[in-house]
Amino acid sequence: MNVLLVFAHPEPRSLNGALKDFSVRRLERAGHVVQVSDLYAMKWKAALDADDNTAPLLGSRFNPSADSKRAYENGTQSADIEREQSKLRWADAVILQFPLWWFTMPAILKGWVDRVYAYGFAYGVGEHSDSHWGDRYGEGSMAGKRAMLVVTTGGWASHYGSRGINGPIDDILFPIQHGVLFYPGFDVLPPHVIHRTSKVTEASFGEVCESLGKRLDALWTTPPLRFRRQNAGDYLIPELTLREELAPGKSGFAVHTEST
Amino acid sequence: MNVLLVFAHPEPRSLNGALKDFSVRRLERAGHVVQVSDLYAMKWKAALDADDNTAPLLGSRFNPSADSKRAYENGTQSADIEREQSKLRWADAVILQFPLWWFTMPAILKGWVDRVYAYGFAYGVGEHSDSHWGDRYGEGSMAGKRAMLVVTTGGWASHYGSRGINGPIDDILFPIQHGVLFYPGFDVLPPHVIHRTSKVTEASFGEVCESLGKRLDALWTTPPLRFRRQNAGDYLIPELTLREELAPGKSGFAVHTEST
Repeated sequence: MNVLLVFAHPEPRSLNGALKDFSVRRLERAGHVVQVSDLYAMKWKAALDADDNTAPLLGSRFNPSADSKRAYENGTQSADIEREQSKLRWADAVILQFPLWWFTMPAILKGWVDRVYAYGFAYGVGEHSDSHWGDRYGEGSMAGKRAMLVVTTGGWASHYGSRGINGPIDDILFPIQHGVLFYPGFDVLPPHVIHRTSKVTEASFGEVCESLGKRLDALWTTPPLRFRRQNAGDYLIPELTLREELAPGKSGFAVHTEST
Repeated sequence: MNVLLVFAHPEPRSLNGALKDFSVRRLERAGHVVQVSDLYAMKWKAALDADDNTAPLLGSRFNPSADSKRAYENGTQSADIEREQSKLRWADAVILQFPLWWFTMPAILKGWVDRVYAYGFAYGVGEHSDSHWGDRYGEGSMAGKRAMLVVTTGGWASHYGSRGINGPIDDILFPIQHGVLFYPGFDVLPPHVIHRTSKVTEASFGEVCESLGKRLDALWTTPPLRFRRQNAGDYLIPELTLREELAPGKSGFAVHTEST
């Protein structure tokens, strides 16, 4: 299978860099083909702007979504964006690996999402009708592909627990797992989170790798998170609110996952 | 009073640009002094990296937090970072204005947070003991200052409601309001969110401005969100989990706000 690993850490000789190298070896030894988008090494441009369309502006104003749509349709996107989209089309599974900085991904990775996720590619896909509100949240260009986050934090696991002060890690990652990955159609696997990275020693590094390695070995067999599909009947359209009879009386991120 | 408006949209002649201009005029007419950090106009560098310290690396590896600490302590931070920190020290209130892209801030603004929020400035502040786990979540360099988000979305308000498919807007913004703003000590006001921006017309623009204007007029009087202070007794230290008797049996982001 084809795996795209998108990696966002500035130091190759960091724990994150070592884990990225480990992942590539582990996946290749299992017979997979791996491409790495090492965003810092690529000097990835983070800020979405008018230069992302190689064609001149229509009119005098840059409109982020309208220009993204036009560039995608006309084949005038900048080459770095097209290359990443080709990798995504090629991939059977995508891993986003990053340190959690201020409770989300580093800016350079956010800029990969902002720019690669073009209108017509990752959003603005599919028809809108009374029963279908675009191909999104379970349908879309990434349908049939798997995705997983590999995340490191400096903080303790308890700080990210169900009543930990930072908020539960699953809720912190929801906008990424549900909003960035499930939205264009990925099947999203549970995240692999490594806490308290400053305490990882040479002695414990082997265990950290083995734990990650098991997740990589199970990339094709791990059941994905059971996010609810938008157009399968659970939501009113166009309000896109969960039907009253589902998770009655409850609210928040959790209602968008089917209970087991 | 002094207001810093950090603005992250690539097109000055957009709705966001017009709202930014409106905000500056409104605040200045009320007698406040306003500085704008227009990140796109400033060509803000989004990616945190070793160049953020003008001194050479110690050793051969770049360590994001250790190097941030060293640069901050030694006065060797890059000039763009120092300028933004000075603006933050100067400000009595900070407004972050941005379009919601993929359920969080645009990359360029995330890069402002990643880089300006240095170790010793926004984190790694204060003592750690059995009863105090650093000056954070209600204490810190930004204590006594107010902060507010002004956010635009393309989607409908119902999509961001308590059972809307995107998740509740308050939960989507929690990692920013609680994790980026309350963490270094800001009093965080309720956000001002403008939905369905493509439907704002010349006719309705005045109402959109007036609604925002009322929030700006009340910047000094609006009660802040009642996030729980870390070191005031609500949390076990060092686990940083909410004490059992508070919000008993509950979990998730909501438990970190005191009920009224």
